[in-house]
Amino acid sequence: MKLRDIPTPALVVDVNAMERNIRRMAEFFADRPCKVRPHFKAHKTPAIARRQLAAGSCTGLTCATVGEAEVVVAEDLTDDLLIANEVVGPGKAARVAKLAARADVKVAVDSHAALDDLAQAACAEGVEVGVLVDVNVGLPRCGIAPGEPALELAKLVAATEGVRLRGLMGYEGHVVAIEDRAEREARTAKAMGRLLDTAGMVRAAGLPCEIVSAGGTGTYDITGRMDGVTEIQAGSYVLMDTAYAKLDIPFELAFSVLGTVLSRPKPELCAADSGHKACTMDHGNPSVKGIEGASVLFLSDEHATISLPAESTLAVGDRIELWPSHIDPTINLHDILFAVDGEEVVEIWPITARGYLEHRASEILRGVGG
Amino acid sequence: MKLRDIPTPALVVDVNAMERNIRRMAEFFADRPCKVRPHFKAHKTPAIARRQLAAGSCTGLTCATVGEAEVVVAEDLTDDLLIANEVVGPGKAARVAKLAARADVKVAVDSHAALDDLAQAACAEGVEVGVLVDVNVGLPRCGIAPGEPALELAKLVAATEGVRLRGLMGYEGHVVAIEDRAEREARTAKAMGRLLDTAGMVRAAGLPCEIVSAGGTGTYDITGRMDGVTEIQAGSYVLMDTAYAKLDIPFELAFSVLGTVLSRPKPELCAADSGHKACTMDHGNPSVKGIEGASVLFLSDEHATISLPAESTLAVGDRIELWPSHIDPTINLHDILFAVDGEEVVEIWPITARGYLEHRASEILRGVGG
Repeated sequence: MKLRDIPTPALVVDVNAMERNIRRMAEFFADRPCKVRPHFKAHKTPAIARRQLAAGSCTGLTCATVGEAEVVVAEDLTDDLLIANEVVGPGKAARVAKLAARADVKVAVDSHAALDDLAQAACAEGVEVGVLVDVNVGLPRCGIAPGEPALELAKLVAATEGVRLRGLMGYEGHVVAIEDRAEREARTAKAMGRLLDTAGMVRAAGLPCEIVSAGGTGTYDITGRMDGVTEIQAGSYVLMDTAYAKLDIPFELAFSVLGTVLSRPKPELCAADSGHKACTMDHGNPSVKGIEGASVLFLSDEHATISLPAESTLAVGDRIELWPSHIDPTINLHDILFAVDGEEVVEIWPITARGYLEHRASEILRGVGG
Repeated sequence: MKLRDIPTPALVVDVNAMERNIRRMAEFFADRPCKVRPHFKAHKTPAIARRQLAAGSCTGLTCATVGEAEVVVAEDLTDDLLIANEVVGPGKAARVAKLAARADVKVAVDSHAALDDLAQAACAEGVEVGVLVDVNVGLPRCGIAPGEPALELAKLVAATEGVRLRGLMGYEGHVVAIEDRAEREARTAKAMGRLLDTAGMVRAAGLPCEIVSAGGTGTYDITGRMDGVTEIQAGSYVLMDTAYAKLDIPFELAFSVLGTVLSRPKPELCAADSGHKACTMDHGNPSVKGIEGASVLFLSDEHATISLPAESTLAVGDRIELWPSHIDPTINLHDILFAVDGEEVVEIWPITARGYLEHRASEILRGVGG
């Protein structure tokens, strides 16, 4: 199969660029105590995770949802797994407990309610689930306050049957995209100070803290150099997007949304079939690859309206590639990735963990009506 | 199954509100020459399309993609089908020709290239495919210029073997969301004037123009009252979103994204599991349903960070519902819809046409590697 035969819109991975990204990350961590725990949520694609793990310097995989973790275990990608997110809601803790019978599963916890739920499910399943206390390091989202509140929760975890305290996590998501390196470094140091100070308090209290998990693609070489951080949860580095490409990090854009020109209503305009149902815009409009002076004017559901240089010869039926501003949600729109080497499609990879897997479960559909 | 048992994030439809929306639209068109051709792209859900068609006042269904049309035909929803979009790219025209053997399929055409492609595929399949000349009425996207250029294309369609000229379409997408009714009416009249004048020229040239298709949820009662417009391509009215709810139209918000509170790190903040992989933000942040003073601060991949009144008793594990700003891409993220009546889940509907169906075809995955 050739690039020109792919029905559009479609996701295209430049396998050589991707392999270079994977190698660069593995090399950075090869001789350090800190390792990378690639974030599966970025691509949800077993074929890519296998390549990341095979390159070495990895502790295992990070997931954001129970459904992703289920795919990781079902596909036998690794038995070292972190769900770097709170697990709350109907059936979720029970599903984690089932996974813990088959793999070394750690879960982020920031509340008594979530801890109780998890411990109860683990006891019912006769397993022990690992816990990282989720510490808020500045991003207004999840996480318990650093210092005493986090220490108290760690003590409670350590004293609770069914769970085992493994350490801490803290995601500095509020600083990973800061373009200026000096400012990114300073603010990362401040955020990580909160996490590492808390880790010190936990250890001083005689509690285990073997894992200190943090970091992302934008801070891998800042947080990843800090004493006491044991792993980096980077995801985007493997394929990259235009938001991360603004930073001074050595990863290449290895991913695009392939579209077809549907209409060329005016010399300075075309409409392609790659709208925001094919390419998300939560981090801004995508960029046009390889056409000097072209830019996306706006995306609608099924169309990208693109401004072109009037002299462009682009015609109806021609291909046009967009670089998305954010890979994670863009990949989550699709079911497969086309891995290409030049003009050749060398493999097609299912995006196995796309969407919310509990909702694809046939038992739900059998349970009630249509 | 009860609302409280639904694993989140999940999409919830208030069936009673939806039925009222469907009834209001059917009643508006009951005694008019113009009818509604509900847009399947809005929800991609056969169970909903069946209810829209059953309510009457419909000509058939509108689709935006060949994949949607394939689902409409496979599910036997209607045999009167409009793909209100250009059909271009590998395999697409051939797939339309296959559909035309089983249903009365019309396709929007705005270029010689797309027309040639379609005619060739139709001849190869031994069928005739209906064509609406797609006229640009002001939205910078697809569509040939009104007047002479559109007339010339209509003549070419009429003279081309394998296709049959059925009329015109023109989508006034640039005006459907204008909140002020007087301005919306004035600009709709201007846009539709271009389409109706062109229709007059086509008829004056002795060519058939039985269909004049236009309109959306925001203009259904403006465009739908105009002499000469035969059908309205409205989609969103059936479930509604916060963008359309700003207009003075009689449709109710019948749809929400159900989430679970993962974390309540501060009295004035919570994080829920309904991020932008569950609820798109291309038309802006969603709104919080039913909590006075609550609003979405930002969405990230798997989290909604929500500002709460400090006195709110919302706790980890509680449910929170978001009203999306745009239903079409939000529904496209999910695989099923939970239809509820109060606290009771009465049916579960597969979103059968979600994503790009050509990419789920097993033959593609069999064809190359992975």
